[in-house]
Amino acid sequence: MDEHATASPSARTTIRRLPEKANHDRAMLHGIVDEAYVCHVAFSADGSTHCIPTAHWRKGNYLYIHGSNGSRMLKALTADTQASVAITLVDGLVLAKSAFNHTMNYRSVVVYGQFEIVENSEEKLAALNAFMDKIAEGRRHEARPGNSKEVNATSVLRISLAEAAVKVSASLPSDKEEDLELEVWTGVLPLKTTRGTPIHAQRDERIAVPRYVENWAD
Amino acid sequence: MDEHATASPSARTTIRRLPEKANHDRAMLHGIVDEAYVCHVAFSADGSTHCIPTAHWRKGNYLYIHGSNGSRMLKALTADTQASVAITLVDGLVLAKSAFNHTMNYRSVVVYGQFEIVENSEEKLAALNAFMDKIAEGRRHEARPGNSKEVNATSVLRISLAEAAVKVSASLPSDKEEDLELEVWTGVLPLKTTRGTPIHAQRDERIAVPRYVENWAD
Repeated sequence: MDEHATASPSARTTIRRLPEKANHDRAMLHGIVDEAYVCHVAFSADGSTHCIPTAHWRKGNYLYIHGSNGSRMLKALTADTQASVAITLVDGLVLAKSAFNHTMNYRSVVVYGQFEIVENSEEKLAALNAFMDKIAEGRRHEARPGNSKEVNATSVLRISLAEAAVKVSASLPSDKEEDLELEVWTGVLPLKTTRGTPIHAQRDERIAVPRYVENWAD
Repeated sequence: MDEHATASPSARTTIRRLPEKANHDRAMLHGIVDEAYVCHVAFSADGSTHCIPTAHWRKGNYLYIHGSNGSRMLKALTADTQASVAITLVDGLVLAKSAFNHTMNYRSVVVYGQFEIVENSEEKLAALNAFMDKIAEGRRHEARPGNSKEVNATSVLRISLAEAAVKVSASLPSDKEEDLELEVWTGVLPLKTTRGTPIHAQRDERIAVPRYVENWAD
């Protein structure tokens, strides 16, 4: 099924071409943001438009990114720059009777807004903890926490998810009436992100293997 | 291992933060573009910076995208607009002894340039054939080809891969000397795109199941 548009918080997040694919349901939005590890951030700086991949996480209705204080991207994003952030999960190839009707199943989010720096040190630590929780639940109680030098060298930025367009396509092929009798296979070739067997950096019997490592592989 | 920078065709594609992650080897670049089904295109239009996901394919040293003639993005990209295209494959989470040294393994391409419309009808058909070959080798001889109305309603755009930055991180965790004795598990949690069991849109014994469908699932 295709998800349908329900609301449209701004002109930029109105899906003009395929309104039936738009879905503004917040749970779907949060689910897509949480499932992906990497987003793409678009912004203009130094006369160029850039599209840069970076790790992200979510806390409430904000998407967070982080990086070194000296990062070109973080400097540009905090200089009163309008940005757009996109996250896309590809779920499959949709093979129709005609070349023209081939398509993909996917779930995507496109966010518009401005990043703000998380200055408050408690909020910054809480945000970094949320990032670690996303990577591996419980690990922040095992790994050595960041010391003040490390935390100070890191910038944490966030952008509101208020102005966001969600598109979901999860359908079987749709063909024209006159193509339906063609003897051509139709269907969906699914794609999925899976988790492989963990690689142990060291073999040391004193070191317990955490549950999130034992349970990692699909 | 981390791949290393070899050359840098422009200031924008110089990796400033992590030069050891840059790799300008063309084979790696082409491999990343070919493995991914979706890219993110950044451009400015109507006073906003946009980041839009779209299907892509490669032919020679060009990345191709397509869409309806009426698409906002395609209109904007053909209006003398500088664009940036990014493709990212996430290969794993890298868990270090300290929170600060956690990172990800990934392969990414960031391209800068300007899209051009593929006007020549033979080149346009060849490009669309290349797209179909990427989706399923041989299928363009089975599915009904686009008729002139369908092909005319579709725009095909391409951007040169000449100005591209490739970054590859494929490493075990790297920790500070003083953290090495901590009794914390370290290693890599791999992530991989896998191919699931095909979904048949119809069950019809007259219709042969193509080899690319039979052989699809991992």
